[in-house]
Amino acid sequence: MDKLSLYGQRLAALRQELEKEQLDAWIIPSSDEFHSEYLPPQSRHMTWLCGFTGENGVVVVTRDKAVTFVDGRFTVQIRQQAPESLFDYEHIHEVSPEKWLANHLPVGSQVGYDGFLHSARWVRETRDCLHHSQLTLLEVGDNLVNRIWKDRPKAGNDSMILLETAGQTSRGKRLEIAQILKEKQCEALLITHPECTNWLLNIRGRDIPCTPLVLSYGLLKNDGSMILLVDNNKLPDSFAAHVGEGVDVSEFSRLSDVLESLSGKTLLLNPDETPDRLYQQVKAAGIIIRDGKDPCLLAKARKNEEEREGFRRAHIRDGIAMCRFLAWLDREVTAGHTHDESTLADKVESLRSEQDLYLEPSFETISALGPNAAICHYNYRYSQPRSLEGESVYLLDSGGQYLDGTTDITRTVAVGRVSDDFKTLSTLVLKGHIALASTRFPACGTTGLQLDMQARLPLWMHGYDYDHGTGHGVGHCLGVHEFPGRFSNRFNSDPLEAGMVMTIEPGYYRNSEWGVRHENMYEVVPFSVDGEIDTLGFRHMTFAPFDNRLLDRYLLTEHELDWLNGYHHQVYEKLAFYLDEPDRQWLKDACQPL
Amino acid sequence: MDKLSLYGQRLAALRQELEKEQLDAWIIPSSDEFHSEYLPPQSRHMTWLCGFTGENGVVVVTRDKAVTFVDGRFTVQIRQQAPESLFDYEHIHEVSPEKWLANHLPVGSQVGYDGFLHSARWVRETRDCLHHSQLTLLEVGDNLVNRIWKDRPKAGNDSMILLETAGQTSRGKRLEIAQILKEKQCEALLITHPECTNWLLNIRGRDIPCTPLVLSYGLLKNDGSMILLVDNNKLPDSFAAHVGEGVDVSEFSRLSDVLESLSGKTLLLNPDETPDRLYQQVKAAGIIIRDGKDPCLLAKARKNEEEREGFRRAHIRDGIAMCRFLAWLDREVTAGHTHDESTLADKVESLRSEQDLYLEPSFETISALGPNAAICHYNYRYSQPRSLEGESVYLLDSGGQYLDGTTDITRTVAVGRVSDDFKTLSTLVLKGHIALASTRFPACGTTGLQLDMQARLPLWMHGYDYDHGTGHGVGHCLGVHEFPGRFSNRFNSDPLEAGMVMTIEPGYYRNSEWGVRHENMYEVVPFSVDGEIDTLGFRHMTFAPFDNRLLDRYLLTEHELDWLNGYHHQVYEKLAFYLDEPDRQWLKDACQPL
Repeated sequence: MDKLSLYGQRLAALRQELEKEQLDAWIIPSSDEFHSEYLPPQSRHMTWLCGFTGENGVVVVTRDKAVTFVDGRFTVQIRQQAPESLFDYEHIHEVSPEKWLANHLPVGSQVGYDGFLHSARWVRETRDCLHHSQLTLLEVGDNLVNRIWKDRPKAGNDSMILLETAGQTSRGKRLEIAQILKEKQCEALLITHPECTNWLLNIRGRDIPCTPLVLSYGLLKNDGSMILLVDNNKLPDSFAAHVGEGVDVSEFSRLSDVLESLSGKTLLLNPDETPDRLYQQVKAAGIIIRDGKDPCLLAKARKNEEEREGFRRAHIRDGIAMCRFLAWLDREVTAGHTHDESTLADKVESLRSEQDLYLEPSFETISALGPNAAICHYNYRYSQPRSLEGESVYLLDSGGQYLDGTTDITRTVAVGRVSDDFKTLSTLVLKGHIALASTRFPACGTTGLQLDMQARLPLWMHGYDYDHGTGHGVGHCLGVHEFPGRFSNRFNSDPLEAGMVMTIEPGYYRNSEWGVRHENMYEVVPFSVDGEIDTLGFRHMTFAPFDNRLLDRYLLTEHELDWLNGYHHQVYEKLAFYLDEPDRQWLKDACQPL
Repeated sequence: MDKLSLYGQRLAALRQELEKEQLDAWIIPSSDEFHSEYLPPQSRHMTWLCGFTGENGVVVVTRDKAVTFVDGRFTVQIRQQAPESLFDYEHIHEVSPEKWLANHLPVGSQVGYDGFLHSARWVRETRDCLHHSQLTLLEVGDNLVNRIWKDRPKAGNDSMILLETAGQTSRGKRLEIAQILKEKQCEALLITHPECTNWLLNIRGRDIPCTPLVLSYGLLKNDGSMILLVDNNKLPDSFAAHVGEGVDVSEFSRLSDVLESLSGKTLLLNPDETPDRLYQQVKAAGIIIRDGKDPCLLAKARKNEEEREGFRRAHIRDGIAMCRFLAWLDREVTAGHTHDESTLADKVESLRSEQDLYLEPSFETISALGPNAAICHYNYRYSQPRSLEGESVYLLDSGGQYLDGTTDITRTVAVGRVSDDFKTLSTLVLKGHIALASTRFPACGTTGLQLDMQARLPLWMHGYDYDHGTGHGVGHCLGVHEFPGRFSNRFNSDPLEAGMVMTIEPGYYRNSEWGVRHENMYEVVPFSVDGEIDTLGFRHMTFAPFDNRLLDRYLLTEHELDWLNGYHHQVYEKLAFYLDEPDRQWLKDACQPL
């Protein structure tokens, strides 16, 4: 069946459900009940209904219209995927779904939603917004799309992984967080981030792509005991011994019973991140709600020594795979083999998968040639992949999930003759990277917002900039985008702390021509200096050569040259041993001082 | 009468008033009904009651206790000024007055305040806070201190100044702001900042120290007409012709009548900055309140070409005075004359006062020798002034109000042998100054919070920092501290814009030994670059030499040396012509390339 008929039928079926429920609209976000960045197949409601595969969007279906809302990253992709004869397109930052509904539905209309897919805060604010226009927001009790999605995939049933290299026992972590709960005078914490339940219990899983998680909720009490809400079938026999005493397991369906036991007690939860359905259950159980962030988020972001050691080992293996790939690519280019973006992405993944403890990519690989590299979030899967033929540069942003760490690296490399203009911009971007990576800053209270401009200044001085953040925190065999660490020019009040693991990834994008990004990962470490205040700085985690052919050495200061040559010296020292000829010779050449 | 008896009597008299009014406490802030940074004599209630002369504090008097609350800048000064047998001391950031009251007064107590001296927001929040502890916040209708302050000074009666060099007519300004009101669908704007009424009408005055203002409120309507609430006696004959059509004048006492006319209309005002008494009158008049910032604040901060030209001329005259002072100081040191901090401050003021269009200092001069320079907000008036004898460095932070502009400059100079350690730190501070002053940044949306770290980084790299902002906006013959422009590591979402005038003033303070600060003023100007985005940068306004004797040239990069030598070249070019020998020769020497 062609796309048009397929999505046309699905919309018609959904509209029948609207009629049954006497609803005038239904809201479908690209999210699941676990805030997953990468959705499991059974939660891709928006994809099923309109074809859109991007990470962030909403579709609203009324009796006679269907409208998609995406941000600037996806305005091209949505038009390729959702047929325009069936769907209107809105930029979500210009017109929000609730504003659109308020402007388009007649007074008295009823709008339905699935309370598991929206946060308590979203429901409250959207209800208020619609109320102003005399519209009603209604929860139906189930998801209308699920009713008509006949071949909806089942949730995965991969077994849970018990992580042996977490550096701290689950009991130790639980007692640490329990202490924070006591200080906040809360009896318990409702954990709705699976990253936090997985961190707290030293478990992992294969329930969603790119992030090795077991989907689960948790309820941690201030004595350190915990109830894990999870699909029981995923538990290995040794689970109880692994997590230590004080952990009970319950099915999701028994959440109400679990909450009953907290009636009259004070529960810490974050209404921004708690699905509204859960929030309502908490209220119905007579629990006192204390608004606040999940303290696991910060504790998890400060990696312990064993986690950092794991990260370092994973980065050596990842560096080996990257060097093999980059050496292979150079040879293939020389040989005139014209691989396309898809083949190149497959090649780097296959080299990573040869490495120990590798699980999967840590995000969808950006494999972009020539003008495609100018699109920050380019995805060759939804485009016509370009091939090496006739191109000048290749941008590869990729990473791996390993049981002992997570990687994220971007290299931009020459695959043809590059222009002087490109070299200038590529060098300015590297100058920014070096400036931020060389910064020492007060250990107490410095935010990524304060440091972000270091990476932009060399571009600013020449009248250029890039329209994305400069870096993000990375989880330990968890999400590749981990809060609260963040280098960004958006407001951010969470300070950087020792033990965080961060990317630094400035870039520059010449529209329709080419793009460049230089990305490494760093651990935030204390630096001893002679002065009066404790300072932090960054220590290399990523090891793989930057492409010297893209740099103009006369734009680099002595300090910057020393940094680059010193880094390449380290890369060679760390990786050469593991590479066979001719890759070793390639690395030697690539690491020659500039 | 000694201090103890004097303040003891005053407290006793205030407690009698408390009893009369059946109040249990009275709150006295160091503020007036115009948010003045520098209070006129008749508004120094806190000084009269406890002796404290600092810019920021609160005193709370109960039936049996009196407690002062000041921030870290004034914790030493308050102990010198308010006798400890009469007053307790609290750090205002550790214990706020309302928290203190909540903890110390018995349930059912009544706390009085003067509704003109606190903002509507403060009253709302304080009332809520006290209410939690079952205390009541009560407005009495007048100020209890005024009842007992027998020799309270009268408000000044200096005539209004009509400013001829404002670069835009009052009518032009009023129509511009009126347009903003229309866009916000407001009928009028309540202006409670005298800086805004003075800017809007191109008037100035001498009602308070350090800021040449006529104390006044204003009501601007969205047709550009305006009612100025002011002491009628201050109006010169040519006022009406000067401000142009559409300006009525009314006495403060007639505010209620003025507000009556707006009943049912929408009025823009900022509850953070509107005295609660006014706010209540607005509400009582049946006016619809729209919360929002006064749009005059931003318009005023973006100086027009004539204002900037005035600033530049004022800075030449100010530079002449500064050079004469610095040359004189060097000669006096050589001659072994041991002036003290007070004499030195008087000398620089007297040299400024010889200059055309000079009005007064733009803030209380910081004249600090040796260890006193380590105190950021040192005030020799409330200390035992040190003299030049045996000291190594002198820090002078001073400025002038001229009819065509306002200045603010800090120079740190050698008055003896300086240590290598001092030279290192002094050079690091200058490196930070140069880094920020050399920055180009996106014209759209860049905040001072993003740029602030540029000035700190050279210190951070060596483990040092300073505990104050890096710079502030400066008004045009108005407040020397002007919002919204600000370089600070505190949250600040207002972007820098072309036409703003800013200080850059990093420093470093070695406790009990010495301090250094290098401060110049800059205008924010567009820079043309070859790139893709519009950028802004800084252009020198201040001209006076930095003291090369305090610098270690081997710590300066080639760019920094070029910047410093280029600046000194400009200083000589601009000022030499106006100086007589031997000051000219002194300047020539001071401006020699390092």
